[in-house]
Amino acid sequence: MTVVWSRQGYLFKGGSGRMMTGALSLVETAVRAGVEVCFANPGTTEMPIVAVLDRVPGMRVVLGLFEGVCTGAADGWARMTGRPAATLLHLGPGFANGLANLHNARRARTPVVNWVGDHATRHLVFDAPLTSDITALTRSVGWTRTLKSANEMANASLAAVEAALGPPGRVASLIIPADCQWEIGPEPLSATPIPKLPDLPASVPQEAARLLLKGHGGILLGGNALTARGLHAAARIVAATACGVWIETFPSLQVCGRHVPHFPALPYFPEQALKALENITSLVLAGAREPVAFFAYPDQPSRFAPAVATLYKLADPDAGDNATLALEALAQELDAPVATTPRATTPAFSPSGQPLNPDILCRTMAAFTPENAIVVNEAATTGFTWNAVHASNAAPHTMLFITGGAIGQGLPNALGAALACPDRRVVAFQADGSGLYTLQALWSMARENADVTVVVCANRRYRILQAELARAGIAEPGPKARALTDLTRPAINWAELAKGFGVPACSVHTDDEFAGALTRALAESGPNLIEAVLV
Amino acid sequence: MTVVWSRQGYLFKGGSGRMMTGALSLVETAVRAGVEVCFANPGTTEMPIVAVLDRVPGMRVVLGLFEGVCTGAADGWARMTGRPAATLLHLGPGFANGLANLHNARRARTPVVNWVGDHATRHLVFDAPLTSDITALTRSVGWTRTLKSANEMANASLAAVEAALGPPGRVASLIIPADCQWEIGPEPLSATPIPKLPDLPASVPQEAARLLLKGHGGILLGGNALTARGLHAAARIVAATACGVWIETFPSLQVCGRHVPHFPALPYFPEQALKALENITSLVLAGAREPVAFFAYPDQPSRFAPAVATLYKLADPDAGDNATLALEALAQELDAPVATTPRATTPAFSPSGQPLNPDILCRTMAAFTPENAIVVNEAATTGFTWNAVHASNAAPHTMLFITGGAIGQGLPNALGAALACPDRRVVAFQADGSGLYTLQALWSMARENADVTVVVCANRRYRILQAELARAGIAEPGPKARALTDLTRPAINWAELAKGFGVPACSVHTDDEFAGALTRALAESGPNLIEAVLV
Repeated sequence: MTVVWSRQGYLFKGGSGRMMTGALSLVETAVRAGVEVCFANPGTTEMPIVAVLDRVPGMRVVLGLFEGVCTGAADGWARMTGRPAATLLHLGPGFANGLANLHNARRARTPVVNWVGDHATRHLVFDAPLTSDITALTRSVGWTRTLKSANEMANASLAAVEAALGPPGRVASLIIPADCQWEIGPEPLSATPIPKLPDLPASVPQEAARLLLKGHGGILLGGNALTARGLHAAARIVAATACGVWIETFPSLQVCGRHVPHFPALPYFPEQALKALENITSLVLAGAREPVAFFAYPDQPSRFAPAVATLYKLADPDAGDNATLALEALAQELDAPVATTPRATTPAFSPSGQPLNPDILCRTMAAFTPENAIVVNEAATTGFTWNAVHASNAAPHTMLFITGGAIGQGLPNALGAALACPDRRVVAFQADGSGLYTLQALWSMARENADVTVVVCANRRYRILQAELARAGIAEPGPKARALTDLTRPAINWAELAKGFGVPACSVHTDDEFAGALTRALAESGPNLIEAVLV
Repeated sequence: MTVVWSRQGYLFKGGSGRMMTGALSLVETAVRAGVEVCFANPGTTEMPIVAVLDRVPGMRVVLGLFEGVCTGAADGWARMTGRPAATLLHLGPGFANGLANLHNARRARTPVVNWVGDHATRHLVFDAPLTSDITALTRSVGWTRTLKSANEMANASLAAVEAALGPPGRVASLIIPADCQWEIGPEPLSATPIPKLPDLPASVPQEAARLLLKGHGGILLGGNALTARGLHAAARIVAATACGVWIETFPSLQVCGRHVPHFPALPYFPEQALKALENITSLVLAGAREPVAFFAYPDQPSRFAPAVATLYKLADPDAGDNATLALEALAQELDAPVATTPRATTPAFSPSGQPLNPDILCRTMAAFTPENAIVVNEAATTGFTWNAVHASNAAPHTMLFITGGAIGQGLPNALGAALACPDRRVVAFQADGSGLYTLQALWSMARENADVTVVVCANRRYRILQAELARAGIAEPGPKARALTDLTRPAINWAELAKGFGVPACSVHTDDEFAGALTRALAESGPNLIEAVLV
């Protein structure tokens, strides 16, 4: 087959628009491997991929106005489906813009496939302005492969999906020079990779049971332990061993609400976490890693479990173990009865016109969160309040949490989750400071008519940093330090920002205003935003 | 000196708030070395630096709501002053968010110093959630050094400023573990690095003169050639040799307006650039690299100069040569007369109510651009029109252009330039698509009361990508390809976005509306935004 390139069009000239280019081979193979959506912010080096998207019926394409929207949306999609979404990104700088949310995806062990365009192979030597070391960036978040020829496009596409699926799930990036996209490629592959879970040797739950039965035991739940089944199994284990149970501080996905047992999250600050675990002599890790401090402090240790405690991996998230199955095996090993979880009655709550503070905001939201909602929690300090107390009083829902500490995850995650689960309502529970990193996600929500209600917790400050300054002993910060934690001067008007992106919005100050706005918002089709101004 | 850490405050306990921590040593040394401003988006690992900022009078601190704002502002500041600004960024993800604009700074050879916080050294082994390979990222854009001890803080701070200054200017990053910040540090160093320019051997302008006198010569101007003196010298050389002169397609800083000779920019698309240079037998590079295609195409070469042409480096930007001095030496070598540049009279222009298109928009702006303005041009396709035709008809001004192709440079650059030059008016001439990558810069403009007038060229599409699709032969893109280049559905309301960030704004559709809005905007103190909707 001879390809006739021409200035009036270098694609498809030899094949009446039906030519199997490398780009088409890539996309078609991905679709057959189970990739249904591509969150894209392409440029010139990705045009041969853009050009074939309309020829692949099974691939939905969603434009993000900023790459962090694309990567965070892919993460949200994959957390809800277990299957990777693709992103389409423009060389090194485009990938860099998406890297923070890929860091979060890496920490959540979410399967994500990145297609990163690069200059044509022969052009790289000229160090044109957009040339950079892309591999250095992609390697820093996971699996990576650089294409050398269009012939590899089908194999590489499938390999990336397989790498992403794991287990454990991971970020997999293909660096794809433009010529590998526009040249003739191989026939697409037809394979649907199915991740193989590691076996659970019988000795593992036996040893965990032995440790917990000694008393003073604890379980740290994380990763894929936080399903309804996993939480019920944990409750059974508590009934059999009287152990303590905590949930890792930054879970990727957690089933929450009145229908499941409630366990506390391991606290964020070291002194509180150390206190929680101080009497433990053995800690069983079920889908969680050993608990360590999020940040180091001069007078605090990095490790939270007592030095004398035995740490035991019941289910290792880094090995791809299924923690829910492991917990059930442990409950069975203990011959634990099916627990009837004693649950406090949901506190009665009727809005009364009080000004909103974090606690009242969360109580109101718990009362109005719809059944089967997805709550994407990037509400920072207010979000900890939600997890600790209020989520368990709400209707059954799924919570996605920030995992890697790279803020700006929330709104993109909510977009991806909403597109993955069109029959579920998404509440993006969002800190105002964090939300500003990737606010462009609002526009994609509007374009896709995603059923997302954004609740912005507008305390108009980086409250966590104010807390950290106080912890460092800066009781009265000077004007420069204050300026770095303060989001007034000028106050940010989230309702205006939302409307600028085509999302209906309002601003509320009291619990009754919030309850009314939330009720209306959740009844509407498509996205909307409520700025909840906190006192 | 004994440091008494306490949970009620781990900083300064031993010294009544006067202790010389590593953080203070870093900042004080940088100020003494000439760094006057820090564009900051810190987190917990940078709190010891935040805590000392109020103790260093010479350092202005500007909060960015997103790291790309900080790095782009530092780039803009440094382009206007020649001295580095500092950024303060939060670990790997924070640096990643700022990387795209550092890529542009790298291509512009701008001096920038990044202070990137990291976990305390002892904490890194625990792979806490925010841990990542920061060095992989910092290395990809320039000089980097990872601190191992607080004792290094003064030396490292000075070394980073020296590395940034070059010549050539570069991006210099310090990775600073939190313990290096909070522990006792050395006395600050007092040194003001002065970059040493390479000598210009007499043989270099002699050889350039010999080549140009053979006829069919050309000069490509770039980098630090684009001063008024450099442009006048180029005009003298033309008078002496009848050579052609072009300006590199993506200059970092260019003096423009009626007072300087006008030379065309080398076109962006290969076929046009090849045509421009087709008769050249020698090309003298004055502050520019060999011209190559921005992107490769299947049917176009990467190199623009004819294969038979001799390329000669009069001033090598990568060696830090001063191209203005080299051009003056060349003009002297040629004994070229002081040229009286024949300049077309500025076309008379009076707004008449026409709908705005790129040409009418640029003509209107040229008529109203104030003397001594700084025009930050990230107007993409409309920006090429400005450079090609209209900038030379405007009052004397300085133009900053996108250099590395990583869009999102414009608004942050404008912020930095305005703070660097408070006596000059900044016009941020901004494409709508590109502007959305870093729109958070608007808020910092409002907070700092920066005299920036943002003119958004709202064509509501990625026009350059539509052109690229057409060039690829996709005459009628399908719905998915169209969706990826279209910014309607919903239309973005820039006036609302600006108001959300506290910036007064309006929207205009005709040349008279635009002229009126621009006149009013330029007369006001502080930032404002005009959305110029293009037909």
